[in-house]
Amino acid sequence: MSKFWSPFVKDLVPYVPGEQPKLAKLVKLNTNENPYGPSPKAITAMQAELNDNLRLYPDPNADRLKQAVADYYGVQPAQVFVGNGSDEVLAHAFHGLFQHGQPLLFPDISYSFYPVYCGLYGIAAETIALDEQFQIRVEDYVRPNGGIIFPNPNAPTGCALGLEAIERLLKANTDTVVLVDEAYIDFGGETAISLVDKYPNLLVSQTLSKSRSLAGLRVGIAVGHPDLIEALERIKNSFNSYPLDRMAIAGAAAAFEDKAYFQQTCQRVIDSREAVVAGLQALGFEVLPSAANFIFARHPDKDAALLAAGLREQGVIVRHFKQQRIAQFLRITIGTPEQNQALLDALQGL
Amino acid sequence: MSKFWSPFVKDLVPYVPGEQPKLAKLVKLNTNENPYGPSPKAITAMQAELNDNLRLYPDPNADRLKQAVADYYGVQPAQVFVGNGSDEVLAHAFHGLFQHGQPLLFPDISYSFYPVYCGLYGIAAETIALDEQFQIRVEDYVRPNGGIIFPNPNAPTGCALGLEAIERLLKANTDTVVLVDEAYIDFGGETAISLVDKYPNLLVSQTLSKSRSLAGLRVGIAVGHPDLIEALERIKNSFNSYPLDRMAIAGAAAAFEDKAYFQQTCQRVIDSREAVVAGLQALGFEVLPSAANFIFARHPDKDAALLAAGLREQGVIVRHFKQQRIAQFLRITIGTPEQNQALLDALQGL
Repeated sequence: MSKFWSPFVKDLVPYVPGEQPKLAKLVKLNTNENPYGPSPKAITAMQAELNDNLRLYPDPNADRLKQAVADYYGVQPAQVFVGNGSDEVLAHAFHGLFQHGQPLLFPDISYSFYPVYCGLYGIAAETIALDEQFQIRVEDYVRPNGGIIFPNPNAPTGCALGLEAIERLLKANTDTVVLVDEAYIDFGGETAISLVDKYPNLLVSQTLSKSRSLAGLRVGIAVGHPDLIEALERIKNSFNSYPLDRMAIAGAAAAFEDKAYFQQTCQRVIDSREAVVAGLQALGFEVLPSAANFIFARHPDKDAALLAAGLREQGVIVRHFKQQRIAQFLRITIGTPEQNQALLDALQGL
Repeated sequence: MSKFWSPFVKDLVPYVPGEQPKLAKLVKLNTNENPYGPSPKAITAMQAELNDNLRLYPDPNADRLKQAVADYYGVQPAQVFVGNGSDEVLAHAFHGLFQHGQPLLFPDISYSFYPVYCGLYGIAAETIALDEQFQIRVEDYVRPNGGIIFPNPNAPTGCALGLEAIERLLKANTDTVVLVDEAYIDFGGETAISLVDKYPNLLVSQTLSKSRSLAGLRVGIAVGHPDLIEALERIKNSFNSYPLDRMAIAGAAAAFEDKAYFQQTCQRVIDSREAVVAGLQALGFEVLPSAANFIFARHPDKDAALLAAGLREQGVIVRHFKQQRIAQFLRITIGTPEQNQALLDALQGL
C-alpha cells in the first residue's frame, strides 16, 4: 500500500489467470485454448496488415470486424461491440451497465473474474448457489438485482443452460441487464444472440480466444440492443479510442468469415471431448456434462490437488481451483488426440 | 439514455480522436502519426509470431517487452508497466492514482482526453492556464491537488518543459503523483525517466504510436517507482489479464531494441519540422516552438477553420480544435518531405 494509490486499490484482489508456462514441451491443458491453430484465412488477413501502414492508427470503430460479426449472426453493426478480448468487453459492461443500487447476481461457481470486476467498479455482488448437480436454476435469479451475469456454458463446470430457460429468466427480469457470457458457446451450447431483437436488456458476450483459436490476438465481442451497445461505446471512447490493433481487426473479421474452418475445428474438439469423457469415466472419474472445450471431473477416491501435482510432474498441466464445493474437481482442456491420450496415460499411473 | 445504463454513463463526454479517413489518397497530417514505417526488425519480430501459436494466450506480464524497455532506459522491469496503447496506460493511472479528495491539476490547453478520464472515474479536475506564450509555469501547480498531469512536450502546442522545471515541481509537490505524459518526447524533449529513481511520486508515460511508428499496433508504457507500477498492475489484472497480444509484445520489444532505426527516423522528422516551420513562417504564420512531431501555428490574417477547410478541399487534412484560446491555431503533423511540400503548396493558395 502506498499513499499515492487511489484508496480502493489496496482492497483490489486481482484475477489470477491460468499459468502461461514459458517451457514449450508441456501438454498444456490448463487455459482452455484451442488445440488447433486459427483459420489460415485469418493468418493471411493479418499478414496483409503487417507492413509500414502499422505507422497509422487503426479504425477506431473496427467497422470491418463489426460488419463481419453482424453478417455472421444476422444482426446490425449497431448491435455489435468489439474489444481487446472479452475480458475488456466484460469490464466495460460491468462499469457501464451494472452500477445500480441492487447487487449484481451470478452463480457461486462461475468465472472468477466477476467478483474482481465488482471490486474494480464498486459493485455489490450476490452469489446464487448452483444446484446439487452444479446447474444454474434460473428461478433463483428472480429477485431484486442490479444485473445478472452467468457464463453459458458455465465455467469451470462446462454445463450449458438451454435457451428456453434463458428466455424464462428474461421474461421474469425486465428491469436490469442480463449478460450471457458465451465464451464457450460454440462447443455445444446454443447462442442467445437469437433473442437480442426480442429482449432489450439482453447482452451476449463472446470471445475469439476459444472456438476461433485466437487467444493470442485478444478480441472479444458483445451483441445486444443498440442502447446497450451505446453504453459500451461511451465507456470505450472514454477509455481508449483504439482498443483493437490493425492485425486484430483484420484477423478477427477473417475468422468470422471462414465458417467452414470454424465448424470443422469445433467439431474435432467436440469429438475429442467425448473420447476424453469416456476415457476418464473408464478410470473411475465423475465428469459433469460438458458443452465446452474443457471438462470438469472428480475422482471419488483421489485428491484433486494431488492429481494435478502428479500430472504436472509428468508434464501435463490442468487447472485446479482451491474453492469450496469444487476443490475436488480438475478442469481439463480438450487437446489434440495425442495430448488427450497423454493426459489419460498420465492419470493411469496416479 | 437507457434505464439499463449505470447512471454516470449519461454524463460521459467521450474523447473524439482525429479522423481516420478510409480514403488512401489524402495527405494525412491530422493525427501525429510517423511518416516513416516501423523498424524492419519490429516487422520481422511480429512475423515470427504470426502462426498457429496465436491459439495460445500471450504472456500476461509481457516480460519480454518490459525487459526491452528496462534495458533501453537503464531501469528495472519492476519499474515498467505496459498497456494497450498509452491511452489505456493513462486510464489505469487516472483510476489507480488520481482518485483522491483534491482535484487533479492539468493545463487548460493540453491532451483533451484528460477531462474525459476524469468523467469516467469521477475525478474532480482543475485546469491551470498556460501563460501568454502558451508555456507551462510549474509554479502555478504548487497548490492543493490530488495529482498533476501534463504532456511534455505539451499537446497540441508542441512546447517542451525542461527537466529543471519538472524537478522543481517534484520538489514542491511530494504528496501526490506527478504524471509526465511523454507521447512526443523523442522529437526534441528530454525524458523525465532519468528522475524516477529520485522521486517516488513521478510516473512517466510514453507511447509507441509516434516516435516508434506503431500507432497501428497499440502499445504504451509507463515508468516509475515499483509502488506506482504495482497500482497499475493491480488495476490491469482486475480489468484484463492479457492486454497485449503476441505480435504487439514482440513488435514493441524489437522496436525498443532497434535504436539505430529509431534515432534515424526521429532525426528525419526533426529535420523536416525545421523546414516546415521555415516554410510556414515565410507564408506569414506564427509557429510555436515545437519539440514534437507536429507544429502549432496561426496566421495573423487568416481564419484557422477556413484554412483547415481549404486544405481539406485540396486533399490535405490537419487538426483544428474549436477551443478557447487556440481556435485560431492549426495543429499540423510533420509528414514526409513530399507531404510537407504539398501542405505548403496548398497553403500558398489560401
